[in-house]
Amino acid sequence: MKRRIAILGATGSIGRSTLDLVERSPERFEVVALTAQKSVAALADAARRTGAKLAVIADPGRFDELRAALDGSGCRAAAGPEGLVEAAACEAEWVMAAIVGCAGLVPTMAAIEAGKAVALANKEALVTAGSLMTDAAKSSGATLLPVDSEHNAIFQCLAGSRSQHVSRLVLTASGGPFRERSLDEMSRATPAQAVAHPKWSMGTKISVDSATLMNKGLELIEAHHLFGLPSDRIDVIVHPQSVVHSLVEFVDGSLLAQLGSADMRIPIAYTLAWPERMETPAERLSLADIGRLDFEKPDLGRFPSLRLAREALEGSGGEAIVLNAANEVAVEAFLKGAIGFCDIGRLVEEALGKINSSAPQSIEEVVALDRETRERASLMVSERCC
Amino acid sequence: MKRRIAILGATGSIGRSTLDLVERSPERFEVVALTAQKSVAALADAARRTGAKLAVIADPGRFDELRAALDGSGCRAAAGPEGLVEAAACEAEWVMAAIVGCAGLVPTMAAIEAGKAVALANKEALVTAGSLMTDAAKSSGATLLPVDSEHNAIFQCLAGSRSQHVSRLVLTASGGPFRERSLDEMSRATPAQAVAHPKWSMGTKISVDSATLMNKGLELIEAHHLFGLPSDRIDVIVHPQSVVHSLVEFVDGSLLAQLGSADMRIPIAYTLAWPERMETPAERLSLADIGRLDFEKPDLGRFPSLRLAREALEGSGGEAIVLNAANEVAVEAFLKGAIGFCDIGRLVEEALGKINSSAPQSIEEVVALDRETRERASLMVSERCC
Repeated sequence: MKRRIAILGATGSIGRSTLDLVERSPERFEVVALTAQKSVAALADAARRTGAKLAVIADPGRFDELRAALDGSGCRAAAGPEGLVEAAACEAEWVMAAIVGCAGLVPTMAAIEAGKAVALANKEALVTAGSLMTDAAKSSGATLLPVDSEHNAIFQCLAGSRSQHVSRLVLTASGGPFRERSLDEMSRATPAQAVAHPKWSMGTKISVDSATLMNKGLELIEAHHLFGLPSDRIDVIVHPQSVVHSLVEFVDGSLLAQLGSADMRIPIAYTLAWPERMETPAERLSLADIGRLDFEKPDLGRFPSLRLAREALEGSGGEAIVLNAANEVAVEAFLKGAIGFCDIGRLVEEALGKINSSAPQSIEEVVALDRETRERASLMVSERCC
Repeated sequence: MKRRIAILGATGSIGRSTLDLVERSPERFEVVALTAQKSVAALADAARRTGAKLAVIADPGRFDELRAALDGSGCRAAAGPEGLVEAAACEAEWVMAAIVGCAGLVPTMAAIEAGKAVALANKEALVTAGSLMTDAAKSSGATLLPVDSEHNAIFQCLAGSRSQHVSRLVLTASGGPFRERSLDEMSRATPAQAVAHPKWSMGTKISVDSATLMNKGLELIEAHHLFGLPSDRIDVIVHPQSVVHSLVEFVDGSLLAQLGSADMRIPIAYTLAWPERMETPAERLSLADIGRLDFEKPDLGRFPSLRLAREALEGSGGEAIVLNAANEVAVEAFLKGAIGFCDIGRLVEEALGKINSSAPQSIEEVVALDRETRERASLMVSERCC
């Protein structure tokens, strides 16, 4: 029987890779619903190609445009937050949650509450609402399938294992473009230098997060929620080649690692086919051609984000929301030239110290604390600039 | 309930490591039977410590000595080939098959035919009688648990996977002490140079096999029988640090690897606790401390063993017996100074060309072809020396 799937965020990078895999295996998948933020043409095109029954545009102002684009396709159009939730809770068994930012929280939660297998590509879901999401998954019987290459690697290494046999998770980090730079050089770094990620081609925001290692700090928080281990049993190791995507250490001293080429279709395929596997066109890894893999401890002096993320995890629950939102504001300010590269961490630390956060009890509280943090962090940026 | 275990070859290196683990976890294991080749005192001591019910000495001439050493212990003494088979087929659910050489074939087969979980540490079992052993396991319902670090690594990586999802196995090889030597230097290598293995402390025979890469050739044959993949889907890659013990590539492009420190208690523990895991005192691996892992293609010109092993696998079944026995004779001759290092491969190739081998139908036929090969290979050595 075909697996019925819905893709929330079908026109973004993860959504397009998911569609690529699904369209290569029409015998395995039936696309039920697709959503997009604004790209009406791309959404309607994908809906027609896949025979989707429902297409949702997040921007309500584009509903008529979408309806026109779907005319005669047999695919129903919908729009706005209610449309996204409808797509998340439709008859699909498997939902890709790839809507970027806090806009993805409510539909992701809807898919979890509906007990789906939820492929999690929305970073904010676990960082800002980890306990809410995992509690909801426990209640509904939903399965959380991590898409991020690091968490997907750990998920693969854990297959068939019991949690009491796991002693430690090891997240690998590329180390970013400033791995070998001095603190002085880093303090003078330009946005162009910061977004030059050595391995993956990514957006500017996430590239800067990779340069500060905040990306890894956020992943540490995600790993804690996904796999239930405390912060002191989740290590981060710098691995510039980004070939080993992460590792799990077991109580017997064995480590399992997942490796692969830098192609997001590999982790996406693992979530799509789970608990089976499916073929992908991704390039095969040749260790002999790569030749050498390096590993080193991260320098917490130059990269304070890891320390801040661990401190956030030790708080009552709201700190991760503050960390994430303040970081976004700081990165944006850095990209605009308003603050220096090393100010990003300072601003996040200042926000964590000043903003009173308690554990959110609902997605609405998550969104409210996120908004409050953004406002206050923007003020902090203004104060710094004057 | 405790897992009842028998250890065939309890006083050798693998047997002692197994006992070490078992004695650290008396709540998990009950030792039923122990065997040894000649070491009466060590065997009797282990039997008393563990409360074993049966102790078997392979050398029948030492039966009285063993009986005396066990006096008053409540442990019954037995001896000879029948005693070994009795220990293999006793009431244990789990049997460690760690008797060295062809002497281990019959007791290992007895444990398999009795449907046990059989931890395979006897190299000859799968190399010389792979099809017989795996067929017998299928009939009896026995589970073969590989102890060798490479095969154990693959076994761990495969946990929970289906065979149709596996595209390739990758065996890692340290490359031995001559990895960076020229063919000319290798042809003048002394036994002392050949046994200087860079990573594992091993016996002289297996150290020379590591220097010729014949060890990896034999493991390739074992991997074929254990995991059912043809030779062209089993790669060998040189990895001098011996930290990654082997890898599995899946159809989606993912690779899983098992890593660990150079401590045989890690793979042994995996077989002992399988399908669970148990704690071991093995040192934890720190990738940051190791710093660097290298990988390169093996040089088939300087190391013909890999080619010979693949050719043997493509034969009708007896070739692997000839390969293994001729190699043992050649290595012994090299260690005595009778032939040069590069003559080992030449002699094996000559034996494969001259000795007519067909698929053995029984362990007796395996032993007969093994004996014939040893005699004829010894003659070839004599001819070379004159």
